[in-house]
Amino acid sequence: MSNRKLNFSAGPAILPEEVLEEASHAILDLSQTGIGLLEHSHRGDSFGHIIESAVRGCRSIAKIPDNFHVLFLQGGATLQFAMVAANLLREEGVADYLETGSWSKKAVAEARIYGRIHISGSSSDSNFDRIPPQNSLRPSSNPDYVHYTSNNTIFGTQWKEEPPCPPNVPLVCDASSDIFSRKLNIEKYGLIYAGAQKNLGPAGVTLVIIRDDLISRVDRPLPKMLRYSTFAETNSLYNTPPVFGIFMMDRVFQWILREGGLDAIETRNNKKAQVIYDVIDESHFYQGTAQVDSRSVMNITFKTSTPELDKLFLFEAERNGFHNLKGHRSVGGMRASIYNAFPENGCKELAKFMQEFSAKRG
Amino acid sequence: MSNRKLNFSAGPAILPEEVLEEASHAILDLSQTGIGLLEHSHRGDSFGHIIESAVRGCRSIAKIPDNFHVLFLQGGATLQFAMVAANLLREEGVADYLETGSWSKKAVAEARIYGRIHISGSSSDSNFDRIPPQNSLRPSSNPDYVHYTSNNTIFGTQWKEEPPCPPNVPLVCDASSDIFSRKLNIEKYGLIYAGAQKNLGPAGVTLVIIRDDLISRVDRPLPKMLRYSTFAETNSLYNTPPVFGIFMMDRVFQWILREGGLDAIETRNNKKAQVIYDVIDESHFYQGTAQVDSRSVMNITFKTSTPELDKLFLFEAERNGFHNLKGHRSVGGMRASIYNAFPENGCKELAKFMQEFSAKRG
Repeated sequence: MSNRKLNFSAGPAILPEEVLEEASHAILDLSQTGIGLLEHSHRGDSFGHIIESAVRGCRSIAKIPDNFHVLFLQGGATLQFAMVAANLLREEGVADYLETGSWSKKAVAEARIYGRIHISGSSSDSNFDRIPPQNSLRPSSNPDYVHYTSNNTIFGTQWKEEPPCPPNVPLVCDASSDIFSRKLNIEKYGLIYAGAQKNLGPAGVTLVIIRDDLISRVDRPLPKMLRYSTFAETNSLYNTPPVFGIFMMDRVFQWILREGGLDAIETRNNKKAQVIYDVIDESHFYQGTAQVDSRSVMNITFKTSTPELDKLFLFEAERNGFHNLKGHRSVGGMRASIYNAFPENGCKELAKFMQEFSAKRG
Repeated sequence: MSNRKLNFSAGPAILPEEVLEEASHAILDLSQTGIGLLEHSHRGDSFGHIIESAVRGCRSIAKIPDNFHVLFLQGGATLQFAMVAANLLREEGVADYLETGSWSKKAVAEARIYGRIHISGSSSDSNFDRIPPQNSLRPSSNPDYVHYTSNNTIFGTQWKEEPPCPPNVPLVCDASSDIFSRKLNIEKYGLIYAGAQKNLGPAGVTLVIIRDDLISRVDRPLPKMLRYSTFAETNSLYNTPPVFGIFMMDRVFQWILREGGLDAIETRNNKKAQVIYDVIDESHFYQGTAQVDSRSVMNITFKTSTPELDKLFLFEAERNGFHNLKGHRSVGGMRASIYNAFPENGCKELAKFMQEFSAKRG
């Protein structure tokens, strides 16, 4: 694996090498059963142990209390955009949404299929370059829930802490791009969901952590696969689950625990981001595109002074082994996605390359 | 891979060894890109080539005409049970369902969320031991579509040809457990869907082949992930797709083509099933649980004279390297699932073991 490139992809993204090695073997033969991971019945003991271990690993990482379920679904965050409202938004109710980028907007659009949505805060006026400040928020008096996107991959912004949420109102979070990147107090939440393909595993499996009282909150006619209760009542085994994704998630959970858990992961992630933000802040050559107090630790978005120079930067970066640094078209410039599995050393190497590039071209 | 067991699992099930080898390598490094399969952006060229190749392979195998789309979804057949009705069943319409087992029943239950369902044929009276004969069918005069399950894994039955369907009425098929196991005239269908985990790849990806005029047939408020149009308009890339499953499907498609396509696969599958059915028919020791003219080529269900003897059979089979032969609890006895990737030689070995067991215990 020595010739692996430095991959700054925003997702699907880099995964821990040792987990990839485990998957590579398990596909041919799972734990010396003589049958490959993908070929075992999902009702058999071999997969049973995997999914139990995944739930246990998840609970252990985030110290999840007993009154929460850990579920594995399909359809990514996009299906959760609809499911959250379908399962939590009452006929005559309203839900508050904090609009901080493309993903929040999509979440709102899907939720509107099921009821009334109130945008209780937004940074759309400044092209989502910040998390809306607390004094700008306009919550409803008694929403069915408050929904926010903890990290915004495209705009490089991240909530430093949970947005305000009245007591007894469930806080719902799309944590797809920063789950388990830092300490997490699960008791503040009613529901957290995350597509796996940034910090948890491969695309094709979605983690849902949901408080028990929310599982069957609203009773509207819904397909089985759109009800949280279907998954809660069957330990995520109502139908054949995404076996490979759950296996990978289990191994990533074990990796997180071996690395020292969320405390250690958070410390390392902060250091990783800091070396790159330091180069941006110490130079007049680079500008961060997100407001300083809203900066993401997962996705670092920055520009040079011109689109032409950005292009040259990306070209030379690629040639020097730094891959997938191109920013999203709605922001332009560069984006370095440095999720949990991205190595600290890779961040230092990028910082050094950025300094050299600015010295040469600045 | 020499110590791989003979795995008769009903699904997830055995996959071609050479495909597993390809996946095992690609996870570490996809086509010498220096980035693993699971870590490439789904918007990049590397995955772009994979999904294009998968569509092309699928089209080539089944000679799919240009007026059909090939789509990759999530949620298995279970989500399709709901999506078919949500997208094809009109407000005031009715859909005909042929009830041939547990999966058809689940399809009916989900479809009823969206409108009126008529059971136009059923074999529930005889615990689904047969495909309903043509003269027992009671079709509606002008249904929005006719839905059937081509192969019934639990009961070991299979439609030998498509059920009758009036011209201009789309025929919809859940082909999860026998897709690409035999020749297929796609022009007879409006829509075919299949969860991957029997003949196509790993659990977590669903193949949908849909005629273009059905893609946006009904306009009701639906989540993006429940609309065929979402997938048709974006080449299955509206959100991050199940990358690994699509890669595997592509490789399985290439394997089918290398094996000689559906003609060759069908011939081999018939031979594989025949050697086992021959043992059943030539003995008084074993009884097939499905009526002879309804027998499945994919799942062979049979019993001995007592549950105790079945248990002994399963115990000795397991000890002799024949795995996962236990029948579903609603039928009892044994079930040998011998999907496309199950080797012909394994069928001969099972036949031999069955003969030896009956000689000893009969």
